[in-house]
Order: sequence, then C-alpha cells, then structure tokens
Amino acid sequence: MEHIDNQQSMELKPIGFVHNEIHKFTGQNWGEIESEIVVKPELIEALENIDEYSHLIVLFWTKRADTGTIPNKVHPKNNPALPMVGVFATRSPDRPNPVCLAVVELMERCENILIVKGLDAFDETPVIDIKPYLPGNDYVQDAEVPAWVSENQEYR
Amino acid sequence: MEHIDNQQSMELKPIGFVHNEIHKFTGQNWGEIESEIVVKPELIEALENIDEYSHLIVLFWTKRADTGTIPNKVHPKNNPALPMVGVFATRSPDRPNPVCLAVVELMERCENILIVKGLDAFDETPVIDIKPYLPGNDYVQDAEVPAWVSENQEYR
Repeated sequence: MEHIDNQQSMELKPIGFVHNEIHKFTGQNWGEIESEIVVKPELIEALENIDEYSHLIVLFWTKRADTGTIPNKVHPKNNPALPMVGVFATRSPDRPNPVCLAVVELMERCENILIVKGLDAFDETPVIDIKPYLPGNDYVQDAEVPAWVSENQEYR
Repeated sequence: MEHIDNQQSMELKPIGFVHNEIHKFTGQNWGEIESEIVVKPELIEALENIDEYSHLIVLFWTKRADTGTIPNKVHPKNNPALPMVGVFATRSPDRPNPVCLAVVELMERCENILIVKGLDAFDETPVIDIKPYLPGNDYVQDAEVPAWVSENQEYR
C-alpha cells in the first residue's frame, strides 16, 4: 500500500457534477429532490451495470469558498436548539475533509447521466464517487442513535 | 460554494489511521475483525458524543503504490466467476477516487481511539472521515441489487 504520512495530502478529481435547481438551503425536503449527476464522458464505461441497483451511495465535495477554520464542535443542522456536539457525531458539511455522503434512489440512467432522488447537494457540486448500496454491507436494522437525533423531526 | 472545475483537484488530509493486524487479504471475514482508528489528538474534541451511536460510517483511502491506470470495468471481488461490470457498480478499491466506505459497529472509544468491528481496511490505512450511521438517511429496507450480487455468498 502507498505510504501516507500524517501531513501528506491525498488528491481527488471530480468524476462529475450535480445538476439541479437548488442553489441554497431554504428548508426544502431533500428526499423529494431529483438531481442529475453528469459523469465525465470518459467514465461512461465505469457506469455500466449501475442501473441494476435501485439505490446508490454518492460521495460529494462540500467545501465552500468562505470556509475558514473548521470547528471541532457544532450544533447539528445549524440548529441552536440542538446540543453542541463533536463534528464527527454529525453529518455537518463543515468537517476536516469536506466529503459528504447521501444514499439516493436511482431513477434512471441516460448514458453518462444518472437521475437520482434524495441527493442533498446543491447545483454544481463536484461528485467524488458513486457506489452501489449493498444491503449486506450498508443496511443496519438496529442502529442506535442519541436522543437528540431520534427525537428530532429534522432527522427523518 | 467554492468553484471546482473539471480538472481541478481537491485535497484531503488523513484525520487518523487504522491499526489492526491485517496486512493482506487472506480470505478473512472482515465482519468479525476489530480495528482501532487512531484519530489525530488535535481532533479529539471532534469525537465528542460519537459514543452515543452504535454504528459509524468510515471513509478511508485505498490507493496502493503500485496502482497504474484505473480500469473502467472489473470483476467484482476480483472473482473471475463474476461478470465484468462497470467499476461504479462495484465496491472495488481500484476506482477513479480511491475512497472506500465501511459501515462499522462502534465497540468503544478511549479518548482519540475508536475500537470498531467490521472495518475492511488494512493496518495503516489513512482515514478520511467518520460519520454517524443515521437510520433516517442510511437505512434502505428494500434496496434492489443485481442477481450476481444477491446470489453470491461473498456479498453477505
């Protein structure tokens, strides 16, 4: 394996970009939003067979130009009514490596374009990876979460 | 949002490293393997409250030093008995951005060290991110997969 030391950086290139009509968060229900993922044409072969799955995991880049120091603790969902917790205990996009993850429904593939539902990413977001959702790996029936998650409507 | 163009690269830094006794794949059942994730001490505050969850999603870096060109199509699990499919239809580590994902059980946290079960990463693997497993986002009860996945013992 390639040796990576503590300070070394690892480089990603976009495999494609999100296209939708969402440019800022205005309380929309992401679960209902349909987006296109336009994958680079040279990767079209890498998408073969993906339409045999109903759900995908999408990794995407969420660094905003104005991000200064990343806080170690945040209010989840930027909601001051929720407790201040460690950022790794949240899905906040402002994290040491600004990579977010969404489980989405694959509606359709048209060549190098995937139409997906439930991707909580803005228009023009760089996409890093697309993986199949594999129940044997990714499905945990009895996962426990803190009360500030299970009791909060925003988490459903 | 920061504008990223098609060729621009995005940089990651390790947030920590995996420690276990696994240096190569010899058919082990990853589901039973316990690993430590040793997070950088300066990020200890970012781990607060993480032990309120039973399961985590871990993103890790899988680029091997000897990797040349990334194939667009692969045999899943390196098993020639499985069909040759697009790499985005698999969880192969040899993908355009070599970031892998595992859903793991959190056994214990000791300060900046997480003891987890089910992480399919070798010793010294750089860790990119740790996220809580949120059933509302990550749990899909009825996900469909191709027959070459559902009929294959290696996927369970």
